Amino acid sequence: MRLMPNLTFASDNTGPAHTRIMQAVVDANTGPAMPYGADELNARAVTRIREVFEAPDAAVYFVATGTAANALILATLANPWDAIYGHRTSHIEDDECNAPEFYAGGAKLRLVDGPDGKMTPEALRAAIAQSPGGDVHTAQRGPVSITQATEKGTAHTLGEIRALTQVAHDHGLSTHMDGARFTNAMVHLDCTAAEMTWKSGIDTVSFGGTKNGCLGVEAAIFFDPKHAWEFELRRKRGAHLWSKHRFLSAQMDAYMSDGLWIDMAQSANGAAARLAAGITDHPDTSLDYTSGSNLLFARFPRAIHTRLHAAGARYYLFGDADGPDDEQVLCRLVCDWSKTDEDVDAFLALMTAG
Amino acid sequence: MRLMPNLTFASDNTGPAHTRIMQAVVDANTGPAMPYGADELNARAVTRIREVFEAPDAAVYFVATGTAANALILATLANPWDAIYGHRTSHIEDDECNAPEFYAGGAKLRLVDGPDGKMTPEALRAAIAQSPGGDVHTAQRGPVSITQATEKGTAHTLGEIRALTQVAHDHGLSTHMDGARFTNAMVHLDCTAAEMTWKSGIDTVSFGGTKNGCLGVEAAIFFDPKHAWEFELRRKRGAHLWSKHRFLSAQMDAYMSDGLWIDMAQSANGAAARLAAGITDHPDTSLDYTSGSNLLFARFPRAIHTRLHAAGARYYLFGDADGPDDEQVLCRLVCDWSKTDEDVDAFLALMTAG
Amino acid sequence: MRLMPNLTFASDNTGPAHTRIMQAVVDANTGPAMPYGADELNARAVTRIREVFEAPDAAVYFVATGTAANALILATLANPWDAIYGHRTSHIEDDECNAPEFYAGGAKLRLVDGPDGKMTPEALRAAIAQSPGGDVHTAQRGPVSITQATEKGTAHTLGEIRALTQVAHDHGLSTHMDGARFTNAMVHLDCTAAEMTWKSGIDTVSFGGTKNGCLGVEAAIFFDPKHAWEFELRRKRGAHLWSKHRFLSAQMDAYMSDGLWIDMAQSANGAAARLAAGITDHPDTSLDYTSGSNLLFARFPRAIHTRLHAAGARYYLFGDADGPDDEQVLCRLVCDWSKTDEDVDAFLALMTAG
Amino acid sequence: MRLMPNLTFASDNTGPAHTRIMQAVVDANTGPAMPYGADELNARAVTRIREVFEAPDAAVYFVATGTAANALILATLANPWDAIYGHRTSHIEDDECNAPEFYAGGAKLRLVDGPDGKMTPEALRAAIAQSPGGDVHTAQRGPVSITQATEKGTAHTLGEIRALTQVAHDHGLSTHMDGARFTNAMVHLDCTAAEMTWKSGIDTVSFGGTKNGCLGVEAAIFFDPKHAWEFELRRKRGAHLWSKHRFLSAQMDAYMSDGLWIDMAQSANGAAARLAAGITDHPDTSLDYTSGSNLLFARFPRAIHTRLHAAGARYYLFGDADGPDDEQVLCRLVCDWSKTDEDVDAFLALMTAG
Repeated sequence: MRLMPNLTFASDNTGPAHTRIMQAVVDANTGPAMPYGADELNARAVTRIREVFEAPDAAVYFVATGTAANALILATLANPWDAIYGHRTSHIEDDECNAPEFYAGGAKLRLVDGPDGKMTPEALRAAIAQSPGGDVHTAQRGPVSITQATEKGTAHTLGEIRALTQVAHDHGLSTHMDGARFTNAMVHLDCTAAEMTWKSGIDTVSFGGTKNGCLGVEAAIFFDPKHAWEFELRRKRGAHLWSKHRFLSAQMDAYMSDGLWIDMAQSANGAAARLAAGITDHPDTSLDYTSGSNLLFARFPRAIHTRLHAAGARYYLFGDADGPDDEQVLCRLVCDWSKTDEDVDAFLALMTAG
Repeated sequence: MRLMPNLTFASDNTGPAHTRIMQAVVDANTGPAMPYGADELNARAVTRIREVFEAPDAAVYFVATGTAANALILATLANPWDAIYGHRTSHIEDDECNAPEFYAGGAKLRLVDGPDGKMTPEALRAAIAQSPGGDVHTAQRGPVSITQATEKGTAHTLGEIRALTQVAHDHGLSTHMDGARFTNAMVHLDCTAAEMTWKSGIDTVSFGGTKNGCLGVEAAIFFDPKHAWEFELRRKRGAHLWSKHRFLSAQMDAYMSDGLWIDMAQSANGAAARLAAGITDHPDTSLDYTSGSNLLFARFPRAIHTRLHAAGARYYLFGDADGPDDEQVLCRLVCDWSKTDEDVDAFLALMTAG
Repeated sequence: MRLMPNLTFASDNTGPAHTRIMQAVVDANTGPAMPYGADELNARAVTRIREVFEAPDAAVYFVATGTAANALILATLANPWDAIYGHRTSHIEDDECNAPEFYAGGAKLRLVDGPDGKMTPEALRAAIAQSPGGDVHTAQRGPVSITQATEKGTAHTLGEIRALTQVAHDHGLSTHMDGARFTNAMVHLDCTAAEMTWKSGIDTVSFGGTKNGCLGVEAAIFFDPKHAWEFELRRKRGAHLWSKHRFLSAQMDAYMSDGLWIDMAQSANGAAARLAAGITDHPDTSLDYTSGSNLLFARFPRAIHTRLHAAGARYYLFGDADGPDDEQVLCRLVCDWSKTDEDVDAFLALMTAG
Repeated sequence: MRLMPNLTFASDNTGPAHTRIMQAVVDANTGPAMPYGADELNARAVTRIREVFEAPDAAVYFVATGTAANALILATLANPWDAIYGHRTSHIEDDECNAPEFYAGGAKLRLVDGPDGKMTPEALRAAIAQSPGGDVHTAQRGPVSITQATEKGTAHTLGEIRALTQVAHDHGLSTHMDGARFTNAMVHLDCTAAEMTWKSGIDTVSFGGTKNGCLGVEAAIFFDPKHAWEFELRRKRGAHLWSKHRFLSAQMDAYMSDGLWIDMAQSANGAAARLAAGITDHPDTSLDYTSGSNLLFARFPRAIHTRLHAAGARYYLFGDADGPDDEQVLCRLVCDWSKTDEDVDAFLALMTAG
């Protein structure tokens, strides 16, 4: 029983794995099992993904980190001389220490702007036009990567996704969804996994588990399996093929069973919505975006931040650690799946206590 | 309770994780924890490694696969224009799908020969001499990688390690030990981890946990921490930095506690020794090498193999699946830490049953 | 004797090599010569560069293309996990098909804005601040590349160069000058090569010859020779080390002799100035930037463009080939060193003939 | 008029460019010419290659160095996770500072043995078999590269080439000929360029000009043009696309005109044959291989070497600079196209003078 409220809103990754995920890992540890994914658990987990995505032919592979899923998929889609199109604030640009460029052999990320962490179709079109077809001098046109939910916590609507994938496909370019917070966005949109992906023009997905209650597992999904074998080679060459692969499969199998993935995302989004309401209601605090997930960007007077921090609240602060009390500071607050109403209320109570 | 004997000798990786390792992972799943290795468990696991290796200044990092440890360390030691020296039968050459070359930006593996899976100092010296110093045309001289235990199941003696590292250091080259089966060799040699590494001239180690009872964890160890930050960047860029890093640290912490790592290696080696004795005693079967670990290469008449296979025994067979009954076939037999006397005896009974 | 005016303003590269350069190549073709730069001509050409740049310790190497000089130097300065800072319109970003990323092992170009093809110090500082020190997640801070003359034909003043290199050095970052049109800018500024480079904080230079009257030769200059051997290895590994290296050295030797490099740049700049004056004087045509080199961006009514094109004038047109007569079109006009007053006047006469 | 004999037998690269090649370069320097190969000379040179090779559809590109041709072609044929098969003594292994690995994104060279610098079909087959199909763990099977003439100066017969390409094609692998000394071997075999290449199963060729009388030009030839655009992008990204491309094309155009390429190779081979005869006739000197080109490996008593060296003869000596007078030393002697009977006889006279 947890007596103290959990005031850590630093990241999804500070939260625990769900008990059912952990139990699945424990249960996978019986008897000899074939390595490298040649076990039954892997087949079962792949089947679950295919069913949920209504994609019986999809090629599905598991890796332990989201950056691995992103970088390996993008390297499979992009030639080394290509530009990969993504939002200026995307994870692949800002938080992967050049992993996409490394895996893609020196491909270039071409950054596209737009409000709320979302590329606009016009900006994407302009970025693509920067590389005229058939000109050997510029970076060539490569895949388009959409982050869902975005790094600003917003979710693209299905229409917004379709508008971007339409631009890509108009130019013959393939598409990728960085879904580290896939389920948070999906729950927010109240749509199916298929609707948010291939039915909206998405060709490949980094389908996240780690941030949403797993220990460390992500699925790389190709709706068209033509790149399957190449991906397997890239995964092995990248040192991301597990020998005791069953411990990845087991996580994903449990995650996709009985709606656990959805339940956890609903829980996280619910906590974030409760937190957002409290911040919005407070006269001195505000939010930068309308959240479509479990991620908020809040502005506090520094005095409130100081009080929260002193009381043990943890979250990411942008900018200087010190400054005037009445200065507005920008904070990133993440509700992992395990956050309770009590946790959120305790945070809000500290926030309003002054 | 296990009623049926376990006849799977295919790989260390087909065996289970040890209960204490698994329990440590379960226990790590409480309360919020800082991500990316900034947690207490990581500090504790690093400290255990440093203590066991008598290397208080060592830089120690955890990754999930042995190929990642190897490739990241070698990339840190080698320039892209270098030759990396290793045995012709080494894992980095034969089983990593060019991961070392990928991570090292196109460095070349220069293969060195020698019996029993071990480079001879003479062959290593000759390979190094192939690249004269100061000549821009050839691959430059890079690090020397020693596999301990070897892919043939043998173990280098401390003298053999010293002789190879001496050649490397005579030429100003750094050294790496691929220790996927580190503890199996160490137990065989009845020496300390320090003796088998830095006291014998080893600069860096891929210290294996996965094959020896963990779910998936390896330590990359640099006795001289000068490359620490570079390694951290390479690990992140390679997508091998875990966000929920505590689930790697917990494994390594339990592995290194109360001698568990040694107990498991002793168990595996003991089973292999019992298996080796039975094979050697049988008039029709033989071993190719004197094992220094948990790995055997056996030659059976095909009739024996057929009988074993039909009874459910599993191991790697080199060569054709079919052939004359009296043809000698080569088999690789691996005893993971969980193999019991009963398992081995059941295998031997089938072997001699004909 | 040339009877017809030369109306090709497409690129510096459409112009001829200077007769004295060509003669030097012919003269280099006598007797046996040691390959790979181990000849006397190479030593002499290197010495000339050192003298002109007042840099007796500089490491100086020759390659055949400007992209090779840029990519090899930047790869020497940048780690694969770094960001390389350059202007959004720079050649390394727009015209090298990811060569810098390829040579630098997947480093990222981080684009910096500013008017007239020049980064502003503020924008550079902001771009650098995007990667906080000591954070493993982002691209790390790498070298700063300044294009002089810029791709817009402008020249940074010495003060502007110093302001940018100051920002770089404040952050411990090294600096590179892409000097494909080095001499055009230098002549415009009426300064010395040393003043425009190391005296203004430049650490390395791609010193162009090809665009300014050579057949194909560029010098890679490192004022601090600590990277010399690494560069030699990178050049060889990049397949840019010539065996009959004397034919590169001979060009550079002649280029730097008796002020030929300066004479040609003055000639090119003079022609561009004459052309600029004519365009500015004309009521219907205008220039986008104040040129500091031999490169102009002009806006014409499409009717004028159509007339020029029909008469055989050649230059780069941005945008659609067809459109209304009174639409303003943007054209890039380059005067190579061989352009004469007659050529320019013929162009202007056609322009005004309507 | 050359009064002193030319005693430099160090390399083909120490020799001059042919006057007709040089004149073609001079002649190319008139009037404006479109850059990057969009000029008439390039079209003409490509046509000559297609005619000579009886390959009207071949994709043909020019670069300045042999290493560039080799590395770019092999990178086009090989995936980064592939093994490239070549002889242990090949130039791509020994003399390119990991350029093939760099360009091929970390592909591995798998070395194949055989006498006289030639792979045997059996050894090639065994090397290919080392990577079983469909196994993700090993390097995958990639292209086969044949050096013609070999680095030992020998020439594969057409039958030998066919036997090797047959092994490659039996496994679905593509083939490459490193023809830095292409014409020397062709002249020796008294066959056509087509016979030595696509009629014998060769898919791609690095067709050398530099060693055989050009300043610096090689053709990359793909008999099946399906990779043409990819090669163009790789060439540009590798910084090997010349802006003043006409100076490459002009060389190749002259080289292929009026049989000049053949005349020069015959001259070089003739000189080598004369030199070989003298060495073989001498009681104390011998040759290691039967030359099929302009390259010899000779064994001299050190006293003879000392005398030759003192008289100004230059060639590559393997092993120590000093030693007993009667010790046999191994020397590499290369006759470039300009070597005369007088040069050879002067060398032989010095050799026998003792």
